[in-house]
Amino acid sequence: MNEAIAEARKAEALLEVPIGAVVVWNNQIIGRGHNLRETTLDPLAHAELIAIKQASDYLQAWRLLDCQLFVTLEPCPMCAGAIVQSRIPQVIYGTTDPKAGCAGTLMNLLQEERFNHRVDVVSGVLQEECSSMLTQFFRRLRGKS
Amino acid sequence: MNEAIAEARKAEALLEVPIGAVVVWNNQIIGRGHNLRETTLDPLAHAELIAIKQASDYLQAWRLLDCQLFVTLEPCPMCAGAIVQSRIPQVIYGTTDPKAGCAGTLMNLLQEERFNHRVDVVSGVLQEECSSMLTQFFRRLRGKS
Repeated sequence: MNEAIAEARKAEALLEVPIGAVVVWNNQIIGRGHNLRETTLDPLAHAELIAIKQASDYLQAWRLLDCQLFVTLEPCPMCAGAIVQSRIPQVIYGTTDPKAGCAGTLMNLLQEERFNHRVDVVSGVLQEECSSMLTQFFRRLRGKS
Repeated sequence: MNEAIAEARKAEALLEVPIGAVVVWNNQIIGRGHNLRETTLDPLAHAELIAIKQASDYLQAWRLLDCQLFVTLEPCPMCAGAIVQSRIPQVIYGTTDPKAGCAGTLMNLLQEERFNHRVDVVSGVLQEECSSMLTQFFRRLRGKS
């Protein structure tokens, strides 16, 4: 998760909402991503999608078997859907997203019985650090710090 | 929808599951995509995501305001999430997806009250053609035609 936080810090340095993700396979990081929505003007440029694409390029496979995805914030519906599509077996996230979280908060797309893949989910890892990055970012954005 | 079907035919020619999408803005097509998952070995290479990325590049914006997305098959959770993320106001789809459809069949991510964007959805446009492309494809795949 420290590596996902390092990715989030890269987003923060670009004045992007600080969210980062890494994909791990065989104890090595094969995909990294941080939120780049404003920089790239791309609605798909979420940390998870960037990391998944990189991991998929690395493995030359659309199925990311035996991989873990670490992400600082609970995945949104798009990213949760991408995790299901790429058949990632385990997701570890830092802090919950009360507005769009789809890995247990608003709903749980990662463990939906009717989909053809279900994901093991671990939450709250380095929660305090993942959360405070976001609250500090938005506080600065509102000019209150 | 005929243009989305034309995209699906391109996927079919590559032995990909025939699904196609276009994004329309001001009566012109600014994004096109067809399923390329097997060709590119990319779990994100669904028709809708490819068309959304192209439209976003064209408009130089992550918000696809005043756009319509036409797609031959009901969007999966990832694509439905991407539609919400890109703030597309209207989605028109051909045929329902009983296995993964998230625009009304298994659930409706496009009209979820708790998300920050809701989408106008029209279904069943050229349903027969969109559906028969898929059934014929899978029939050929099973060697029964």
